[in-house]
Amino acid sequence: MTEHTPGPRYTPLVQSLPQTVPFVTPETLERQRGAAFRARLGANENGFGPSPHAIAAMAREAAEAWKYGDAECHELRMALAAHHGVPAEAVLVGEGIDGLLGNLCRLMIAPGDRVVATRGSYPTFAYHVAGFGGEMLHEPFKGDHENPQALIARAKSSNAKLVYLSNPDNPMGSWHDAATVQAMIDDVPDGCLMVLDEAYIEFAPEGTAPPLDVSDRRVIRFRTFSKAYGLAGIRCGYAIAHPDLIASFDKIRNHFGMGRVGPAGARAALADQDWLAHVQAEAATARARIGDIAIAAGLQPLPSAANFVTVDCGGDGDLARAVLAELAARDVFVRMPFTAPQDRCIRISCAPEAELAVLEAELPAALAAARASVQQAQARDATAP
Amino acid sequence: MTEHTPGPRYTPLVQSLPQTVPFVTPETLERQRGAAFRARLGANENGFGPSPHAIAAMAREAAEAWKYGDAECHELRMALAAHHGVPAEAVLVGEGIDGLLGNLCRLMIAPGDRVVATRGSYPTFAYHVAGFGGEMLHEPFKGDHENPQALIARAKSSNAKLVYLSNPDNPMGSWHDAATVQAMIDDVPDGCLMVLDEAYIEFAPEGTAPPLDVSDRRVIRFRTFSKAYGLAGIRCGYAIAHPDLIASFDKIRNHFGMGRVGPAGARAALADQDWLAHVQAEAATARARIGDIAIAAGLQPLPSAANFVTVDCGGDGDLARAVLAELAARDVFVRMPFTAPQDRCIRISCAPEAELAVLEAELPAALAAARASVQQAQARDATAP
Repeated sequence: MTEHTPGPRYTPLVQSLPQTVPFVTPETLERQRGAAFRARLGANENGFGPSPHAIAAMAREAAEAWKYGDAECHELRMALAAHHGVPAEAVLVGEGIDGLLGNLCRLMIAPGDRVVATRGSYPTFAYHVAGFGGEMLHEPFKGDHENPQALIARAKSSNAKLVYLSNPDNPMGSWHDAATVQAMIDDVPDGCLMVLDEAYIEFAPEGTAPPLDVSDRRVIRFRTFSKAYGLAGIRCGYAIAHPDLIASFDKIRNHFGMGRVGPAGARAALADQDWLAHVQAEAATARARIGDIAIAAGLQPLPSAANFVTVDCGGDGDLARAVLAELAARDVFVRMPFTAPQDRCIRISCAPEAELAVLEAELPAALAAARASVQQAQARDATAP
Repeated sequence: MTEHTPGPRYTPLVQSLPQTVPFVTPETLERQRGAAFRARLGANENGFGPSPHAIAAMAREAAEAWKYGDAECHELRMALAAHHGVPAEAVLVGEGIDGLLGNLCRLMIAPGDRVVATRGSYPTFAYHVAGFGGEMLHEPFKGDHENPQALIARAKSSNAKLVYLSNPDNPMGSWHDAATVQAMIDDVPDGCLMVLDEAYIEFAPEGTAPPLDVSDRRVIRFRTFSKAYGLAGIRCGYAIAHPDLIASFDKIRNHFGMGRVGPAGARAALADQDWLAHVQAEAATARARIGDIAIAAGLQPLPSAANFVTVDCGGDGDLARAVLAELAARDVFVRMPFTAPQDRCIRISCAPEAELAVLEAELPAALAAARASVQQAQARDATAP
């Protein structure tokens, strides 16, 4: 076999991109460890599961999998439109919020275009902005909340094309009320689009989401079946926006990308609002339980409007990273914020009691081991030549 | 509600793109008609269905759908690597060949870059090339075959970054043998990548696919579970290429886009090679049957190495389009090539006998009606003032 060079020619933009993977999946970690986790609390998945009707619908649709899915996801789109009281033309179904964010960036962002977001907010959004050559401008969290006024001010001063807010926020679990978010929308400058990521909105208190107004060209909102509906494994998200913006995705999207098995599950999940209420109640119970476990270990849980609780480990990023590693060594998978000072925290997903009991059993020892290893490292640094 | 203008700012490239949808899905046509088709013979789906093991695997995995899929599709990738005798690093799983082609174009094509393909070949590839601003240069079919020598000559003279061949070809069903394709690969100019779309390869005679050589940087090959494996509805394709090229997709792809239900079905389908042999035999029978039906109606079936038969209607594009419309009016869904002179044909997918019997019953009347309507139109044109 001959090695043929020079091989294909990438675009200059692609050549400039790092070989980045936004998240390492728990399966990858398990392969590296050579063992399964006993508590899967790191990906904000919903261990209370999807509606049994959704599981049944997917099992039924599997027998029809020889047919391509409907490129318009017509039935799901109609159901979502009816559920939210908006026209079907204002709804687009896609391969998770991740996939939709990627396509949104492709629509708007050319090299050098500016985007404003909170430093340490959703890394996959930053990945897609970078992937199209956008320049990301960051505002800091303010008291572990995203800072709407600062984000809008930066969007104005920088002539940004997109400004991103997740509400509730991931990874901090904090949130703003509807009036605050609506005031932000009302202040979006001309030529800028607000990207309102509401992946966790079904876990938030009433009055967190502003009313949907699809006549408003200044905002696009993203929702998902991955969280409250318990269907992360079918990767189905949706966007709600002005019909002109929704239609523009048709210029570039992978039209048949959704298949037919996943959307069948999503339709059944949406129809089972009783199950959603059950999950919301279970998540509230789990939030309180995680808070109790943290407090019992001497740590401070932050208030959360999502299906996870972010816990202040009371030190710096080195300590939190050590806690993460010590928990993993004890078969507990959690994640943490990437940037200071939020990286003083770890982020623990809501889950059924069996997994939280593992967390309860392992957290004190993990914490003690983490503190010891950080102290050792500091002592080593202090005596270094 | 206020209409807010000007709204978001699209990139100049996106502004220049048409509001195109590459294919209208049969479900859309059924909604427009207000009635279901009795024979679904237009999308080259595999009505013989996926392996029963694949259906069962998806039904089982549906209960696990609360978990995100593995971003690496590790198990499926390992299984494909073993099946094809290549390293796992040379395999990438993605959202159908369509999704993979889109990402490939994103890696290579910036505005003005040139791509060579056959005029009238796979329109979704052209859609993705245009979507990244590429300039598509077309060579004509030669006797209803793609023309490897002409494609390579054009790639050389135009400094193209990609040259596309589908083997077997869609929509014509024609094919080249492995030696011809290998000679094409061996003649790919420096800096150009050959895109070898083998979506239908499992239906082709032995000796159609050149050996896989993932040390060769000049070619990327695409395969799919949508056709012979009967899983169009999960949208799962894969690429085989040099590991460096495969790794570059990680810079831009939607890492969690595949979910976990579809890949579980794909793994089970790949493991059931007996079912694949059964489908191959059924498809061969159906190809012969479609040929007989065409001949009985006085039409000429073209040789096919795929799960469809392209049938020469013996006239021009107007006649073939009229046949298509008359078949649809009789509840038979077929498609046809877009460009002359291949648009003298219609393209009929292999399917179980019940649907082919509908075709047999309806084709003669559809043909007669089509001929009458074309004659009427010609008479009208001749007497027009």
